[in-house]
Amino acid sequence: MHPPDVPTNPLAARYGGGATPPAPAFALNTALETILNHRSIRRFSAEPLPVDVLDLLVAAAQSAPSTSNLQAFSIVAVEDSGRKARLSKLAANQRHVAEAPLLLMFVADLARLRGIAADINEPCEGLDYTESFLVAVADAAFAAQNCLIALESTGLGACYIGAMRNHPQEVADELGLPPGAFVAFGMTIGYPDPQVATGIKPRLPQSIVLHRERYAPAQADEVAAYDDALRVFRLDQLMSDIAWSRQATDRVRGPGSLMGRHVLREVLQAHGFGLK
Amino acid sequence: MHPPDVPTNPLAARYGGGATPPAPAFALNTALETILNHRSIRRFSAEPLPVDVLDLLVAAAQSAPSTSNLQAFSIVAVEDSGRKARLSKLAANQRHVAEAPLLLMFVADLARLRGIAADINEPCEGLDYTESFLVAVADAAFAAQNCLIALESTGLGACYIGAMRNHPQEVADELGLPPGAFVAFGMTIGYPDPQVATGIKPRLPQSIVLHRERYAPAQADEVAAYDDALRVFRLDQLMSDIAWSRQATDRVRGPGSLMGRHVLREVLQAHGFGLK
Repeated sequence: MHPPDVPTNPLAARYGGGATPPAPAFALNTALETILNHRSIRRFSAEPLPVDVLDLLVAAAQSAPSTSNLQAFSIVAVEDSGRKARLSKLAANQRHVAEAPLLLMFVADLARLRGIAADINEPCEGLDYTESFLVAVADAAFAAQNCLIALESTGLGACYIGAMRNHPQEVADELGLPPGAFVAFGMTIGYPDPQVATGIKPRLPQSIVLHRERYAPAQADEVAAYDDALRVFRLDQLMSDIAWSRQATDRVRGPGSLMGRHVLREVLQAHGFGLK
Repeated sequence: MHPPDVPTNPLAARYGGGATPPAPAFALNTALETILNHRSIRRFSAEPLPVDVLDLLVAAAQSAPSTSNLQAFSIVAVEDSGRKARLSKLAANQRHVAEAPLLLMFVADLARLRGIAADINEPCEGLDYTESFLVAVADAAFAAQNCLIALESTGLGACYIGAMRNHPQEVADELGLPPGAFVAFGMTIGYPDPQVATGIKPRLPQSIVLHRERYAPAQADEVAAYDDALRVFRLDQLMSDIAWSRQATDRVRGPGSLMGRHVLREVLQAHGFGLK
């Protein structure tokens, strides 16, 4: 028996009012439930983190696949309140960057490989190519997502901080990152504040994101259906009544809408990334 | 009671013979166990996949965080044997690309946003910047990693295929990808062949990857300890006796060691990515 407002299909909330895939024919487990129930947490309680949780989260991060086992990422754990406050200012003044008990900075790190090559007197010009930049960003993302699922499975909550790219050189300086290492994104971590209810954000219908054999462009009516589904969520979360399609296009309107990140290429090139 | 060769610390295998963090002070769950026990699977049994598993995996992928909810990725599911065979040839002839029952192609997709902007007659020049490329790659990676953990939690196995970037234009053509969409990596999926034992690959010691407050370069003795730990694993898996530090630097030695990917920037620019 379920109360009427709790969907029996665990995928229902993820697709809002839109077309929802059938409930899986096999039993869910803690991993699947954690993944499907994800929501970004931006308000944390004062409860301290479990002892040794950082060791576990880093082991989880390192357990993710890594391109050719290059392991081209690092994690900088920030707990110092002065540093968190300074990083919050650099990241669009997001309050939770200063408030979260733990801030993990996921570093796309080609500097370590460069140092190892220098130690054994070998060339490493391959690091100067866009491919290597992609590898480092992807390795950091695989690792970070493992970390996120791991911590959420224990009752902790988190939020990615892409705004660490608003001022990439200043953030690198704050952490003492050498050339060839930059923060791809941060992650604020803590126990969710029980006073703040955060819903599951609906995503685009599977018919738009999943393609069979060959790519098919999104249809306007599918996008409109998602605009409707997300509007219901946004109003429920006391957010503005803007359609997703308009909000998303506003976000990529031009260099001025990228929150300073339109200079990312120049900044990274000055900081040891070839990006050839 | 554990037999002597099974470590009681679930993190031990991940760090091989090197320094291992303490066992977590709280109970593991299916999510943590799945994450910590990851290994890449390249040999699959003939067992068919569960009904509806693709719906579930795509829902898992879409449940990952997405930068500003731009959802800048797509998934192309490939099951056609002719297409898998052709893609295998493009991806360094990796046998499991042709053999796996399911091949998911994770597309860094700025084309969808471009199409939506065109539909509502709005500019989208922000997509022409390296920042947007990074967003699309990271969104694809977050989604793919969720998919990986979800499927591994049900007993399936998988392997990322970075070699889909060896011939990015040919792969895009095979899937009919429009300008602004390219395959960041593929993923072969199936039930692991029970005849093939795959061990947990040791990673760099936490002392190298985890930094506290400020970045600290890796020390040569720490790298040497990892070379030793990984050598034990490689010999056990019947792989060559090369040190990780030498293998990794060989992999990034120069443009010729990138398996054709040194032209990624030019190919992507010709295929609708501004990369400014």
